[in-house]
Amino acid sequence: MTTHPNDPSLRSFIEIDPGSDFPIQNLPYGVFSTAANPTPRVGVAIGNFVLDLWELEQDSRLDVGPLGVFSGSSLNPFMALGPKVWTKTRARISELLRHDHPELRDNEELRKQALVPMREARLHLPFAVSGYTDFYSSKEHATNVGVMFRGKDNALQPNWLHMPIAYNGRASTVVVSGTKVKRPRGQLKPPNVEVPSFGPCKRLDFELEMGVVVGQPSAMGGMLTESQAEEMIFGFVLLNDWSARDIQQWEYVPLGPFLAKAFATSISPWVVMREALEPFRLKGPVQEPVPLDYLKQARPQNYDLELDVSLRAAGANAPAGISRTNFKYMYWSSVQQLMHHASSGCAMNVGDLLGSGTISGPEKNQRGSLLEISWNGTEPAELPGGAKRAFLEDGDSLVMRGWCQGNGYRVGFGEVEGTILAAE
Amino acid sequence: MTTHPNDPSLRSFIEIDPGSDFPIQNLPYGVFSTAANPTPRVGVAIGNFVLDLWELEQDSRLDVGPLGVFSGSSLNPFMALGPKVWTKTRARISELLRHDHPELRDNEELRKQALVPMREARLHLPFAVSGYTDFYSSKEHATNVGVMFRGKDNALQPNWLHMPIAYNGRASTVVVSGTKVKRPRGQLKPPNVEVPSFGPCKRLDFELEMGVVVGQPSAMGGMLTESQAEEMIFGFVLLNDWSARDIQQWEYVPLGPFLAKAFATSISPWVVMREALEPFRLKGPVQEPVPLDYLKQARPQNYDLELDVSLRAAGANAPAGISRTNFKYMYWSSVQQLMHHASSGCAMNVGDLLGSGTISGPEKNQRGSLLEISWNGTEPAELPGGAKRAFLEDGDSLVMRGWCQGNGYRVGFGEVEGTILAAE
Repeated sequence: MTTHPNDPSLRSFIEIDPGSDFPIQNLPYGVFSTAANPTPRVGVAIGNFVLDLWELEQDSRLDVGPLGVFSGSSLNPFMALGPKVWTKTRARISELLRHDHPELRDNEELRKQALVPMREARLHLPFAVSGYTDFYSSKEHATNVGVMFRGKDNALQPNWLHMPIAYNGRASTVVVSGTKVKRPRGQLKPPNVEVPSFGPCKRLDFELEMGVVVGQPSAMGGMLTESQAEEMIFGFVLLNDWSARDIQQWEYVPLGPFLAKAFATSISPWVVMREALEPFRLKGPVQEPVPLDYLKQARPQNYDLELDVSLRAAGANAPAGISRTNFKYMYWSSVQQLMHHASSGCAMNVGDLLGSGTISGPEKNQRGSLLEISWNGTEPAELPGGAKRAFLEDGDSLVMRGWCQGNGYRVGFGEVEGTILAAE
Repeated sequence: MTTHPNDPSLRSFIEIDPGSDFPIQNLPYGVFSTAANPTPRVGVAIGNFVLDLWELEQDSRLDVGPLGVFSGSSLNPFMALGPKVWTKTRARISELLRHDHPELRDNEELRKQALVPMREARLHLPFAVSGYTDFYSSKEHATNVGVMFRGKDNALQPNWLHMPIAYNGRASTVVVSGTKVKRPRGQLKPPNVEVPSFGPCKRLDFELEMGVVVGQPSAMGGMLTESQAEEMIFGFVLLNDWSARDIQQWEYVPLGPFLAKAFATSISPWVVMREALEPFRLKGPVQEPVPLDYLKQARPQNYDLELDVSLRAAGANAPAGISRTNFKYMYWSSVQQLMHHASSGCAMNVGDLLGSGTISGPEKNQRGSLLEISWNGTEPAELPGGAKRAFLEDGDSLVMRGWCQGNGYRVGFGEVEGTILAAE
């Protein structure tokens, strides 16, 4: 009971493959339902099972607050209870799942009620998205885009090194992994034509990102210290910021991306708690110039988190890897993003989602979007079987995976998948 | 009972001044509470009273659906019931308030319960804001800003005449009239200094806008026809899109305004139904080039709606008028904005708020922001008593009013007021 839930030596009575994303050291939260019980409720992933927290709550095995915290279709009521409750609850769930704790292990009826095989679970959007903000915090990504469109000498905009640049995204179309994505329509005006036309996007792209799930509010008019910002972060998800490059190119001056990003944003169904990522913290890149005081961070705020993108071309049998990078490359950390976000007096809410911005690394195989991989369409990615992709085609399926590698176990995120449907 | 609620000949048994914003032809919805009953609930403004709809609902005088539609702190449950219920309910409320209908008029006890003097009512944010989108649809405003920053020849961006340009705003800081607004802080880098510093905004501005309140959802992946878009609009509010011009100038390239607009957006407490504005419809400006098919509108979609802005400088006794314009000047209508918004497949939600964009008119005294009134600070507004204002100072109070003038009555919005507090 005194062992920390992150302890690498912990084992569950449930047998878990060392390659599983969901060992006892992870315990990510999600919302699920089953054919037998179609009411969405909160669960925790453990190996190939979902632990039904609403069953445990009703059976008085979890004491989290007002009864029903885990009975609903979103994590928001649980997140609203705050970091002390998050930590206490995780410790209790860890205890219940330990190989040397008999309470659940030896209670066959409760096990049957509370442990749902993952293959029987339908996974839902894990939280109600209050606001969605998308940052632009990978220096490699911003540089790639800048070189492509403005040349090497003016690659980074003058403000980029001084603050985590961001825009408000559209919360209404944040969807869970597996949701099909209809190719958006919009105004298109390639540089070589005089007048725009309306039609299906021809340059449909993905963007590999991580999403921060904000679990605590901040006051309108207030600011955040590093530790305040950190404690507001409930966890992280994988995030695919689908992007219509041609719609974006025509609409975005001067007010930024709007419809080019508003048709869909996909996230992974499991929210991995910030606490579970603690063992994988590391220092981010050196920041030069030194950030202004309100953005300074005293602790390492990046994470060693491997990321993998694969693309199953329409008609192909298997996905092919097209990018392999790491969250550790991010120039601006999630904590800096949150401190910046609140700095003008902007109130943060439970359920806010902050996209990290496309995560690219220094190498060519570490690029987090097709725009970069195909260098603005000029060097299409060559896939096994002969398919080529400058941008996404109808029927293509894009899969992102992410994990922190421990010694003999990994804290993983599962995947975020999306398949492209033809425009109507 | 067969008279339409918009009929100019209708009279209420409540005496209403012809200059009142809230005659029986208006019946706008809001959320209010009183010292005696501090639970926020839904009401309708009528003359100097608030009609308590929750009282009427409990007394079985309104049959709107599941009991409790008007018991909560937002209009969202009522809006979700759809346009047929909106119309039916408005007709019923109109009937209950008519001078020749005895049901409420002659029921002294019910009158005492249901009619709350406006001066005793505390007005709350009338609906839960799902998403906030801010458009940029006044040609005069866009031209003024363009001339200021890019010169006369390139005033309008190439895309402006082809679509209603917009960005996603921040919903978490939409506040009701009367909420004090703390001067935001942010990164400032005037063109003549090398490195940015962090501090209070020095160029704080208002923007005169109308806000569309979306009352019905639309499907992700779908598009909207003109009549579908129209029927989704529940009503309108006055909107002040507070803007930190110096923060904006440094942050907005390339992803648009973010923190410069995220600290506060004020709206009026009464939502005037689209239906109440029907008599004041008119055709907007000629659109040349002709919009693409998906933006075409067959009906007049603008409104003859007078707008007035006044500023009470810190320490001054009275407000002074600084702008007088009309909503009719808008180049892109609210219906076109909504059709455009959904066109990429973006789902709209009950409670979405669409800012029209700053409303300026063709004349100098019709400018909807201090940026334009003071021509980027070079010609400060001269106020009675000798005060001058290039931008807003601490203690200044800004008031916007709006109304449609009928024959012998007016359908008004009340006001949206905000007073600037010093930064911390």
